[in-house]
Amino acid sequence: MFTKRFTNLSPYTPGEQPRDMKYIKLNTNENPYGPSPDITEFLKSMDADRLRLYPDPSSLRLRTVISEYYGVNAENIFTGNGSDEVLSFCYYAFFESSQGPLLFPEHTYSFYPVYTTFYGIDYFKVPLNRDYSINLEAFLKKDHYTGIIFPNPNAPTGMGIALGELDSFLSKVQKNRIVVIDEAYVDFGADSAVSLIGKYRNLLVVQTFSKSRSLAGARLGFAIGDGALIKALNTVKDSFNSYPVDAITQELGIIAIKDTDYFQKTVSEIIKVRDEVSNALLSLGWEVLPSAANFIFIRKDKVSGRRVYEWLKKKGILVRHFNQPGIEDFIRVTIGEKSDMKLFLDLISDYKQVDK
Amino acid sequence: MFTKRFTNLSPYTPGEQPRDMKYIKLNTNENPYGPSPDITEFLKSMDADRLRLYPDPSSLRLRTVISEYYGVNAENIFTGNGSDEVLSFCYYAFFESSQGPLLFPEHTYSFYPVYTTFYGIDYFKVPLNRDYSINLEAFLKKDHYTGIIFPNPNAPTGMGIALGELDSFLSKVQKNRIVVIDEAYVDFGADSAVSLIGKYRNLLVVQTFSKSRSLAGARLGFAIGDGALIKALNTVKDSFNSYPVDAITQELGIIAIKDTDYFQKTVSEIIKVRDEVSNALLSLGWEVLPSAANFIFIRKDKVSGRRVYEWLKKKGILVRHFNQPGIEDFIRVTIGEKSDMKLFLDLISDYKQVDK
Repeated sequence: MFTKRFTNLSPYTPGEQPRDMKYIKLNTNENPYGPSPDITEFLKSMDADRLRLYPDPSSLRLRTVISEYYGVNAENIFTGNGSDEVLSFCYYAFFESSQGPLLFPEHTYSFYPVYTTFYGIDYFKVPLNRDYSINLEAFLKKDHYTGIIFPNPNAPTGMGIALGELDSFLSKVQKNRIVVIDEAYVDFGADSAVSLIGKYRNLLVVQTFSKSRSLAGARLGFAIGDGALIKALNTVKDSFNSYPVDAITQELGIIAIKDTDYFQKTVSEIIKVRDEVSNALLSLGWEVLPSAANFIFIRKDKVSGRRVYEWLKKKGILVRHFNQPGIEDFIRVTIGEKSDMKLFLDLISDYKQVDK
Repeated sequence: MFTKRFTNLSPYTPGEQPRDMKYIKLNTNENPYGPSPDITEFLKSMDADRLRLYPDPSSLRLRTVISEYYGVNAENIFTGNGSDEVLSFCYYAFFESSQGPLLFPEHTYSFYPVYTTFYGIDYFKVPLNRDYSINLEAFLKKDHYTGIIFPNPNAPTGMGIALGELDSFLSKVQKNRIVVIDEAYVDFGADSAVSLIGKYRNLLVVQTFSKSRSLAGARLGFAIGDGALIKALNTVKDSFNSYPVDAITQELGIIAIKDTDYFQKTVSEIIKVRDEVSNALLSLGWEVLPSAANFIFIRKDKVSGRRVYEWLKKKGILVRHFNQPGIEDFIRVTIGEKSDMKLFLDLISDYKQVDK
């Protein structure tokens, strides 16, 4: 009844969304601020009649607006139903086991290995450095691989890689192997590699509207890269589902990109709160990995990551704990509104007593 | 640079959406009426702030409303980003070449063979009957196949299969092979097989909000079937993209299902206009296949399908022509608003003179 490929699947587990009580959600890296106020205005006056028509399957107006923002051409942009779908299409087009395994960091976005089971691709996890940063040198030591994918900044560590280091890395990667840099969190302070797509035709940058543009609910992600790679992603899309981005989401994406003031204001505020919370945690004796994202990855001597996660949940705050050897001591905390982070800090400063 | 599976792709070609002039669009089976007026009201008062949060990955409220409408349980419903995505997931979970080819009708929805190239599945096209209806007997004569898929009513013919015939067919199909009935157009007068899902655990019915519920722009489709099949589709989804249905679309789907009055009124009007147009064409000497859909498939002696399509396009009306041996004489005409169909009839009654 089921296919062999189906029986091999090992699906992704999204962050929990419990409905038993009202939580302060610091577990799925959502933005504490709503999207641009222009979006509310647009929805208010939208002509719903247009929904009877199929959306533009190529999202041309949206791609044009994104391309102008990043100083590239519309032919360099591919849009999909969230960056998860864009990443999935990348795996389909660019990665296959006959060329070797796909390389990604040992601790990273947990959807990466899931896609490999979906498409039947071998993978190899490259260990992090001792300071939990991505070890690009170790990637370069492998000479047999089908491609490379990593986030910048990495999740769940939040640690970024500088542009010069990315440039040097890309110059040494085999030219016939695609490197996907997943920049889901890049707007919160990491270096984007978009400026390098003209230099490296095997580089594909993937971004999302879910985090810095507060549109997780609308499902919109995109890739930026050489025209040949973008054309390939379109061929994959048109073999899977021709219209992945609905008509309303295309409009919301255009509005979100155009409202640069609101974008900069909310991103700056999150960065400011992140740095304040990080400093407060440091003074409470917590270790905080240096974050270029809208979340922090923290641990404390003699504190169990799992137990502090459970304790916070009981108190009404959801954070994320990864039950994986090597990072099981940490919890990942999304940067929420200032008032929520104050509650979090108040609670966590009490934690030591409770854990005994 | 590209994978072998990628180089084998043969993508779908959506109906043309030319931008050079304003056409009367009778080519992509869109609904001439907008969605329920309650949708305009909802969008007007929607709190855009919620878009910062991920949507419910399981679309539970939407699935519950759909399940109540069809008299099944929420566990019998799977929702996806348009029925195209739902169909794609079905191929992944249920069809593989080691079990034999996938069977579908010779003339049918042109995405069916595209999915087979996407997943590397063999297929066999079962010829239609001489009257262009689907030949279910011919499907049953095959004893080696991985599964069966066909639309009811079929596209582009518009011809439906009666429930009794479906029931008898399903009783003879191998129990360990999935039958997908694609009911994209069922609401316009064909018999739905939803009442049979309790009887046949290998039956999966797929429907869409794009046609009878006027939400092509919102991208929403669903499957109805035994809980085990639905669970499998969820596993596929969670290995590809956890959140395919955005937060707004989930709400629009709920509203569209609940507004049964508007649904019945608009569907009845389309059926009425379809029957009027069909009769007018018959009296003009056209052959009209009996349609249970929101489109008609028509031809006329000594008239070239391609040429009448091109002539109508020049005059500002888009219809669809399929350049395929066996149906190349036909054009497919979507049933639009009464006034547009009057223009179409006025034009086409002149056609004979022009074609000489």
